[in-house]
Amino acid sequence: MQITTKQLFDDARTHNAWQDKAVADETLHRLYDLMKWGPTSANCGPARILFVKSPQAKARLLPCLSEGNRAKTAAAPVTAIIGMDLAFYEKLPQLFPHNPDARSWFEGQPEAIQATAFRNSSLQGGYFILAARALGLDCGPMSGFDAAAVDAAFWADTSVRTNFLCNLGYGDPAGLHPRGPRLAFDEACRIV
Amino acid sequence: MQITTKQLFDDARTHNAWQDKAVADETLHRLYDLMKWGPTSANCGPARILFVKSPQAKARLLPCLSEGNRAKTAAAPVTAIIGMDLAFYEKLPQLFPHNPDARSWFEGQPEAIQATAFRNSSLQGGYFILAARALGLDCGPMSGFDAAAVDAAFWADTSVRTNFLCNLGYGDPAGLHPRGPRLAFDEACRIV
Repeated sequence: MQITTKQLFDDARTHNAWQDKAVADETLHRLYDLMKWGPTSANCGPARILFVKSPQAKARLLPCLSEGNRAKTAAAPVTAIIGMDLAFYEKLPQLFPHNPDARSWFEGQPEAIQATAFRNSSLQGGYFILAARALGLDCGPMSGFDAAAVDAAFWADTSVRTNFLCNLGYGDPAGLHPRGPRLAFDEACRIV
Repeated sequence: MQITTKQLFDDARTHNAWQDKAVADETLHRLYDLMKWGPTSANCGPARILFVKSPQAKARLLPCLSEGNRAKTAAAPVTAIIGMDLAFYEKLPQLFPHNPDARSWFEGQPEAIQATAFRNSSLQGGYFILAARALGLDCGPMSGFDAAAVDAAFWADTSVRTNFLCNLGYGDPAGLHPRGPRLAFDEACRIV
């Protein structure tokens, strides 16, 4: 599919207001079928995603959000809960078949599990946002929520924990904030 | 710039062998000028990047790597050290001017600092990889290294800590491993 860097990077904005236009389930499948190809260490792919779409599920999510995030999330056609599976290493025999020992790098190593799940599910969050934009969706990623409450409401009795949330839909440019500045190359990077 | 989803996702691979073809400094500037637009919470943009390009800097990096990562990193035209600035919140008055209180959300809060720096610099790592691919570069991201050693060699006397490394160049397909499988939609996602 033809896309542009402007669509993914330069012109893309974090949206706060949404057109009254649904997101098809098929589009969510296509989104995953793009983002899944992004690399993760040992192909561990720890991200797990709940696409909160029904009014019932949305009603369970809203009280978990900080107040400033509630109205825009209520209006978004879909809110993705991007989680990380802390038992991701159980799937390494399937995902990383060329090294049968890979599971043992993590079993009983809570610090390695946490760092690997958090780093790689966040990387996958970056792939998720850019894959959504490639499909013409707009994103509204959020960190302002009660993670324990989201975990209890959506991931109870699982090994998944919430990383961040991301509203999805077709944005209404009228709701955009002014764009924040970015660090210049020399403030953020160096060639050595 | 016109690109394709195949180039960024479906057909892109983690590379281990590199053509003998340099990466121009200008390309590294263009890479940052794309990835910088990716969203981060409160526009905090904690990623800091060292592009290790000179033989002298490469020689300091190689002993910090796990053995399996040394030869391919020695051969890569550039190795990016993607770090996270744990003092990122000092720049919030510049990056998030519409809320003068934003700095106080982090000052003296080491857990919030660590989680925000790690999550958002990893998100930016995802933007980095896809921006590199948009520019025709190939990537070889790596987690197998001694983080304390890289920190000591490259970020001494700074507030930056290493998140992950990523080789950059023009890949030689002869060095590709077979592609790992990915989880099916129903194994990783649910629409609720």
